Amino acid sequence: MSDAVIQVIFSPSGRRGTFQSGVNVVTAARRLGVDIACLCGGNAVCGRCQVHLVEGEFAKYAVTSSQAHLSPLTRREAALREQGLLHRSARLSCQTRLLGDVVLDVPDSSQQFQSVICKHSTVQALQINPAIHVLPLELEPADFAVSDAERLLSQCERDFDLPELHIHIDALRQLGTALRQSRKLSVVILNQRQIIAIWPGSHDALYGVALDIGSTTLAAQLCDLKSGTVLASAGAMNPQIRYGDDVMSRLSYLMQNPDGQTELTDAVRRAVGDLILVLSHNAGLDAQQILDISVVGNPTMHHLFFGLDPRALGVTPFALVTREALSMCAESLRLPVNSAAQIYGLPCIAGHVGSDAAAVVLAERPDLQSSMMLIIDIGTNAEIILGNQLRLLACSCPTGPAFEGAQLSAGQRAATGAIERVRIDRQTLAPRVKVIGCPSWSDDERFGDTAITGICGSGMIEIIAELFMSGVIRPDGKIDGARHGKHPRLVLQGRTWSYLVWQTPGQNPLYITQNDVRAIQLAKAALYASTMLLMQQLDIQRVDQIRLAGAFGSYIDVYYAMVLGLIPDCALAKVSAAGNAAGSGARIALLDRHARSTIEQLVQRIEKIETALATDFQEHFVAAMPFPHASHTFPSLSPLHPNEEPL
Amino acid sequence: MSDAVIQVIFSPSGRRGTFQSGVNVVTAARRLGVDIACLCGGNAVCGRCQVHLVEGEFAKYAVTSSQAHLSPLTRREAALREQGLLHRSARLSCQTRLLGDVVLDVPDSSQQFQSVICKHSTVQALQINPAIHVLPLELEPADFAVSDAERLLSQCERDFDLPELHIHIDALRQLGTALRQSRKLSVVILNQRQIIAIWPGSHDALYGVALDIGSTTLAAQLCDLKSGTVLASAGAMNPQIRYGDDVMSRLSYLMQNPDGQTELTDAVRRAVGDLILVLSHNAGLDAQQILDISVVGNPTMHHLFFGLDPRALGVTPFALVTREALSMCAESLRLPVNSAAQIYGLPCIAGHVGSDAAAVVLAERPDLQSSMMLIIDIGTNAEIILGNQLRLLACSCPTGPAFEGAQLSAGQRAATGAIERVRIDRQTLAPRVKVIGCPSWSDDERFGDTAITGICGSGMIEIIAELFMSGVIRPDGKIDGARHGKHPRLVLQGRTWSYLVWQTPGQNPLYITQNDVRAIQLAKAALYASTMLLMQQLDIQRVDQIRLAGAFGSYIDVYYAMVLGLIPDCALAKVSAAGNAAGSGARIALLDRHARSTIEQLVQRIEKIETALATDFQEHFVAAMPFPHASHTFPSLSPLHPNEEPL
Repeated sequence: MSDAVIQVIFSPSGRRGTFQSGVNVVTAARRLGVDIACLCGGNAVCGRCQVHLVEGEFAKYAVTSSQAHLSPLTRREAALREQGLLHRSARLSCQTRLLGDVVLDVPDSSQQFQSVICKHSTVQALQINPAIHVLPLELEPADFAVSDAERLLSQCERDFDLPELHIHIDALRQLGTALRQSRKLSVVILNQRQIIAIWPGSHDALYGVALDIGSTTLAAQLCDLKSGTVLASAGAMNPQIRYGDDVMSRLSYLMQNPDGQTELTDAVRRAVGDLILVLSHNAGLDAQQILDISVVGNPTMHHLFFGLDPRALGVTPFALVTREALSMCAESLRLPVNSAAQIYGLPCIAGHVGSDAAAVVLAERPDLQSSMMLIIDIGTNAEIILGNQLRLLACSCPTGPAFEGAQLSAGQRAATGAIERVRIDRQTLAPRVKVIGCPSWSDDERFGDTAITGICGSGMIEIIAELFMSGVIRPDGKIDGARHGKHPRLVLQGRTWSYLVWQTPGQNPLYITQNDVRAIQLAKAALYASTMLLMQQLDIQRVDQIRLAGAFGSYIDVYYAMVLGLIPDCALAKVSAAGNAAGSGARIALLDRHARSTIEQLVQRIEKIETALATDFQEHFVAAMPFPHASHTFPSLSPLHPNEEPL
Repeated sequence: MSDAVIQVIFSPSGRRGTFQSGVNVVTAARRLGVDIACLCGGNAVCGRCQVHLVEGEFAKYAVTSSQAHLSPLTRREAALREQGLLHRSARLSCQTRLLGDVVLDVPDSSQQFQSVICKHSTVQALQINPAIHVLPLELEPADFAVSDAERLLSQCERDFDLPELHIHIDALRQLGTALRQSRKLSVVILNQRQIIAIWPGSHDALYGVALDIGSTTLAAQLCDLKSGTVLASAGAMNPQIRYGDDVMSRLSYLMQNPDGQTELTDAVRRAVGDLILVLSHNAGLDAQQILDISVVGNPTMHHLFFGLDPRALGVTPFALVTREALSMCAESLRLPVNSAAQIYGLPCIAGHVGSDAAAVVLAERPDLQSSMMLIIDIGTNAEIILGNQLRLLACSCPTGPAFEGAQLSAGQRAATGAIERVRIDRQTLAPRVKVIGCPSWSDDERFGDTAITGICGSGMIEIIAELFMSGVIRPDGKIDGARHGKHPRLVLQGRTWSYLVWQTPGQNPLYITQNDVRAIQLAKAALYASTMLLMQQLDIQRVDQIRLAGAFGSYIDVYYAMVLGLIPDCALAKVSAAGNAAGSGARIALLDRHARSTIEQLVQRIEKIETALATDFQEHFVAAMPFPHASHTFPSLSPLHPNEEPL
C-alpha cells in the first residue's frame, strides 16, 4: 500500500490534497498550508498538534474515513491517552502517518495563530538623525560635456556640502527619466554618502519601520523618520512556529530538512511583509513611502530573516555566520516597500546573544551608567547583560520555554483565558486567579463564567511562589502532598503530587505537577546561575539596579521573581520592567544613524561569557535550584505579597 | 470599422495574432516577434520593410485576403512604386495599417537577421590581472565568540595579505552552508576588496566575457581570465535594429514611445544573454562558470544596456546620464551567468563618444605615443581621437549610415552577396566586382552565377572613387552623364544621372544614384571636417599615423579612402586598420583591472570637442565636400589603384 495515493481533507479550513500513502500528518498539513501547532518540533512532547478524525460534513468527500487509515497509535500517544491527555478520537499529528483517505479536524487549541501578542515599546527621548534623507534640488540646465550625474553631484556639493557622494545604479536609472519631467528633483541619500533614489518634483515625507523578530512574535513600529513619531504599531505570530516552538526545535528541523532554510526564511519574510502592509494601512500610508527598516532578533531569527545559514547555531560552539551589522536593499528581501528602501540589521553579540540583545543595550545604555546594571531579557532564551561604563558582559541562558508557559501540563501562552495572577489562601489552599481578558479576580462576581484555558508564564511563577509560601512546595521544589493529608486540591499522580489549580466542568482540570515545578526550577536556576557567573567575572556581590525586559519580564510580579530566586539581591525599588527594550533599540537605530555607529562599536566592547564553557556554571546551577536560593538574603520576604491585604 | 478585431498571419514564420483594426504592420509584427527590418525608424526612407500580400498556403487560414484590408497606398509608397522600387503586391510595413484579415509574407530581404557579422579582435600582448580572483582557503575549526566571517577574514589576511576585505551579503549567505560541507573553501574576491562568493571545496577555473555592443552587431569574446586566452568568439545582430537602424532612429522611437526603453533594454540584454550561452556552448563551458563581463558601446547602446534613460542623447546638448565606469552584479541585468558574476562598463567620454571610444583608446594607447596619432572608428557614428602623450582630443561625427551601405539605393550591409570591391574600366566604364562570399572577381569564370544582392559600404567607396577617377563623377560630386553621351551604363533618372553597376536578369538593377554620391559626400565631409577641427585645436597640419578601427575601417581600401578624402594627408604606409579596437579594449579591461583604472583616469584627460558648437565646423565641412578635397595634396593619386595592373 506504500505506493498508493491517499487523499486528506482538513477541517475547518477545507484544505485538501493527495499524497503518497505513509505521509506524516504534519508534513501534509504544512504542504497544504494548514495551521497545526508543533511546538516541540515533532517530538511528541508538547501535545499541541492534536487532530480529530471527523465523521461529519467533510467526511463525505473522502472515499472512506476510518481509524484504520491512520498509522497505529505510538507508545507515546498511548501514554498520553492513558493520562487522559489525548481524546479517544484524537491523534498527535507528529506521530501519525496517513495510510488511507481521511478527514481530520484541527481544533482551535491545535492552531498556532490563535493568540497575537503586540509587543509594546517604551517611548523615550530620541535623537533624530535618520540614515536616509530626501534633499530638494533644482539642477542647472544641461550643458555639453557634462553628464547629468556630474551636474547632480556638483549641485549636492554646492547646496548641501555633500562632496564625494556615490550614485547607486538604480538611482542613475531614475535620473535621466526624472530630468525629462522636471529639473526639480528629490534626491534620496543614504548615510550622507550614497544617492539611492532620484525622483522628479518634491517628496518630503520619510517613513521607516523598526522590526523586532522574536521566535514567537513579530513586532513592528512604523515611524515618521523626520519627527520620530510612532504612527502605528502591530504584531503578528512568527509563522516559523509551525516548524518548532523555540529556536532549537527549528534548528533541529533545519538539520533534518536541507531545503528547510528557504521555507523558514520565506515564511518570516512574508509575515514581515504582511505586517508592514498592515502597519501602512493603519497609518494611512502607502508602503511605497517606507524607505528604511531596522531589524533586531536573536541570532537564529536574524540569520533566517537575512538568509544566512543558522545551522551552526544548533551545535557547539554555536558559531554565527557573521556578527557585523548588515545593510542591504530591502527589495532583495522582497519586502513590499519602496524599491530604494534600505534595511539595517543591528550587529549580533555572540552565538545566542543576538542583535535583539544589542538593541536592548542600545535602549538601556548600561555603558553610560556609573552604577552596576543588570538587564535580563527573558524569552525562550534569556539574554543577560551586566556592567557599567567600565565593563560590559553578556551571556545567553537557555531557560527553555517554561517562563512562556510552554511545555507545562497546563501551560499556555499569554493569551485570552490564561491565568496570569494567583493568590492562594494559606489555610484552605484555595486559589483566587486573574485571567487575561477579564479585569476582575475570580472571587469577584463580575468574573462570572470567564473561560479559563490554561496558565501563562507569569501565572505559573505566582502559583509556585504562593505554593512555596503556603508550605505546599518545599524549598527543594518537592510538592509536599503528604503533609497536607487528604486535601482535595493535592492529588497523587503516579509517584508525585499535583496541585489542582482550576476545574471547569466538562473540561480537563488544570494542575501544577511536580514536572512543572521542576521545569520552572531548571529555568530559574539557569537564569540565576548565568547571572552569578557574570557577577563573578566582575567580582561583585550585588547589583545596583535590575531591568527586566521582554514580555515575560514586563508581566511578572517582581516580588514573586525574588521569592523564587529568579533574580539576585537588589532593592525592590531598583527592579523595574524595561518593556520591549529590543523593540525600543530597533527604533533608536531606525531614527538615529549615529546610534548605529554607537552599537556597532559597543558590541565590540561587550565581553561574551559562554556559560557552556564556564566550569563554575554547574556549581552555580545546582546551588540555584532550591526556593529561595540559600545565599539569597531577600530582605522583605514575607508570607504575603507586599501589595496584598491579609485574607 | 475602427473597433473591429482583425487577424493577421505572417509567413514564412506562421506567427499570427488578432489586433484592433487600424494597427500598423510594424507594430503587429513586433508584438508577434516577427522579424521585419525597419532601418529608418518608420519614416518610409529605407524601403527595407516591404511585405507581400499572400494568396498561397497560409491564405486559407484568414477569413478573407484582400488588398482592401490594408490602408490605402501612401504618397511615398506610390512614388517608390513609380520608380519600380516597390512591387505591385508589396507594401511598406511602416506605412501600412491593417483594416481586415490578411496574410503577409516577409521576404528574406525584409528581415534583419540574415547577415551576421563577427567582429574580430586583434590579438596583442596583454597584462593579466583580472578583477576577480578565486583563492583557496582552509578555515580553522569554529570557536566560541568568533563568527565564521571573522575566521574567514583573519585567514584571508594571514594567508594572502588581504586585510579589510568586505563580505557581500550574498557571499555571507553561502558561507555557513559551504562550511557545513567543507572547511576547504574557494573564496571569490573582487578587486582585492570584496568577497562576492564563497564555495565549498576547490574551484580553480575563471572565465569572463568581453562584450562590444554595437548599434548593428553584438560581438563577444569568452576568455580564460587566468591565461587571457580567447576560448570562443561570437557575434549576433543587435535586435534593437527593428526599432531603427541607427541610434538617432532608436532615440526617436523612444521619444515617441515612453515604454520603449524597457523594450529596447530587454531586447539587447536577451540577445547578449543568448550570445553568452552560444559562447559557453562553443567553448564547452557552463555559462555558470562566467564570473566577469566587460562592456563597451556607444552612449545610446551603453545607456540602453545598463537601463539608463538615453533620450537626452537625442537632443542638444546630448547629455549622458553618467560618464563614469559602472560596476554591478551581472544578475541584476538578468544575464545567464554565475550569480556572483560582476559586470564592468567602461567609462564614456562624452555625448556620442561612448565607452567604445574609450575602449579604442585603451587598445591603441595614443597617450603613450610621441608621434601624432589619429584614430577613426567608423560606424553609424564615427568617433575620432587625435593626440599623443601630451594631449588627447576626441569628437563624434554623425557620418550617417552611408558608410555601412544603408539608406543608399542599392546599399546593403556587408553580408553575403554584397559587392565589396569594384574596378571600372576607364574606357568602357564596365565594372569588375568582387562579392562577399565568393573569392573570385566577376570576370573570372569561377565567379559563375554568384548572386549579387547589393553594395556594401566599402564597395560603395570604391565605385565612387573609380567613377571619380574615370571622370564620370566630377570633383563637385555630380555624375556627369551628359559628357559620356548615350552610354548605356549612364541613365537619366528624373533630373540626375545614375550609373548602372549591375543587372541580374529578373532582378532590380543596382544603380549608383546622384543621391548615393551625395550621401557619401556628406559622410566623408563630416568625417574630414571633424578631423580638421581636432587638428586645428592642436594647431597641426598633418598627422603621423592613422588607425582605422571598426568593420568599415578594416574593410575599406585605404587608397580609395584617400582618393575620396575621407582621411587627411598621411604616408600610405602609416595608415593601417586597427580591426575591432573597441572589442580589443573591452578584452583588455576584462583581463586587467589596472587597465580599468587607466582608462578611468584617461577619459578624464581627454578633451571633448563638440562639433555642433565649433564655429569653424561648417566651413571645414563645405570645403571637404569635393573629391578630393582642395587642400588634399595626396602624393600618390593616380588613375589606377597602386595594386592593380593596367587593364
